[in-house]
Amino acid sequence: MKAKREALLSLFQAIKENKVDEDIVELLLLINSIKGVYTTSSCSGRIGIIEEPSLGAKPLSRWLIKVHRPIKFEEAKKALKNAQKGLIFLKSQPPIFHVVTESLELARKIHEIGLSSGFKYTTYKVISRRYLVEINGTEYLTVPLGKDGKVFVTDEYLEFVIEIGNQMLMRGKSRLPRLREKFEELKEEVGEDPLFTTLSTEKLSL
Amino acid sequence: MKAKREALLSLFQAIKENKVDEDIVELLLLINSIKGVYTTSSCSGRIGIIEEPSLGAKPLSRWLIKVHRPIKFEEAKKALKNAQKGLIFLKSQPPIFHVVTESLELARKIHEIGLSSGFKYTTYKVISRRYLVEINGTEYLTVPLGKDGKVFVTDEYLEFVIEIGNQMLMRGKSRLPRLREKFEELKEEVGEDPLFTTLSTEKLSL
Repeated sequence: MKAKREALLSLFQAIKENKVDEDIVELLLLINSIKGVYTTSSCSGRIGIIEEPSLGAKPLSRWLIKVHRPIKFEEAKKALKNAQKGLIFLKSQPPIFHVVTESLELARKIHEIGLSSGFKYTTYKVISRRYLVEINGTEYLTVPLGKDGKVFVTDEYLEFVIEIGNQMLMRGKSRLPRLREKFEELKEEVGEDPLFTTLSTEKLSL
Repeated sequence: MKAKREALLSLFQAIKENKVDEDIVELLLLINSIKGVYTTSSCSGRIGIIEEPSLGAKPLSRWLIKVHRPIKFEEAKKALKNAQKGLIFLKSQPPIFHVVTESLELARKIHEIGLSSGFKYTTYKVISRRYLVEINGTEYLTVPLGKDGKVFVTDEYLEFVIEIGNQMLMRGKSRLPRLREKFEELKEEVGEDPLFTTLSTEKLSL
């Protein structure tokens, strides 16, 4: 499985460079250690302030701040000072995992794992002879805060929506332990991938 | 297909009682006229103000106002006066269709129709010997406005977020004509359902 080899190497590299969200490193290693399964882009859930040149122009958007734990009011205030052009949003997003599998059976099992762990937007589809499961929650918050460098909300309101955003973030993350348990069960059932064992010993000295 | 018969009868009843969103009546009739395909709960996209007793407590939430076209500032202001308890949100949501099919092949085709019409959250899954395709867009906006009857935002801010919400609503709806074209092509290919022809003549005098 050449694709898995490449995915593992790039994951290990990212871990070494501290580019992987800390609170899901263990979980990502677990998933990737399962035979016939690997992950691509994943996120442990985040909250931040983003600037979008126009509505829905995501490729051109720019994070003013982005953290994978609750955000502090002062951090948000400070980040807002760097706003320049376009719509400014506070965004809170749940954890998301992209899991590739070799077989349809594995994709179905992981789809079920996502749903039963509380990730209600979990879906899967076929991609060129493999299967892609997206494990995704529903805790999305998008609050417009201003436009073209100007903030339209009061400090009180900003505190209010930050509290809601932080609560949603933590609710999303609260599903991670259950997800991990279920992947551990899957590993029991399917077995460890020798490719993972070899590569991780070599590259990560686990 | 007993389930389709029941689905059609309840759709026709809802249309007669003006309970179906006007801008998708034609599209729903088209989809349901296709052999081996029928719809369950669907929505043409909406915007409104909702009160939720606590975060994520959707079953207990209450719409203060909900419309399937852009909302006016005055309507929103008036509706906010009825807020009582819990978190108050402005919500804008794209069109959503639940389409049931007899065969996996049809589910895959409709999944593809949804995606290629710009509904990027389109997914499908197996439900007791049938297939359920959810055609869903990405234009979701959720803006906290206040709590326990108190509104925390200024009129200027409310106007600002209503404009964004209305734009997102119209962007979601702008995909409906393409969706319709593609379902027309599918109907060409698969053919009309005699059950639909009979029942619609009988119940709707089409």
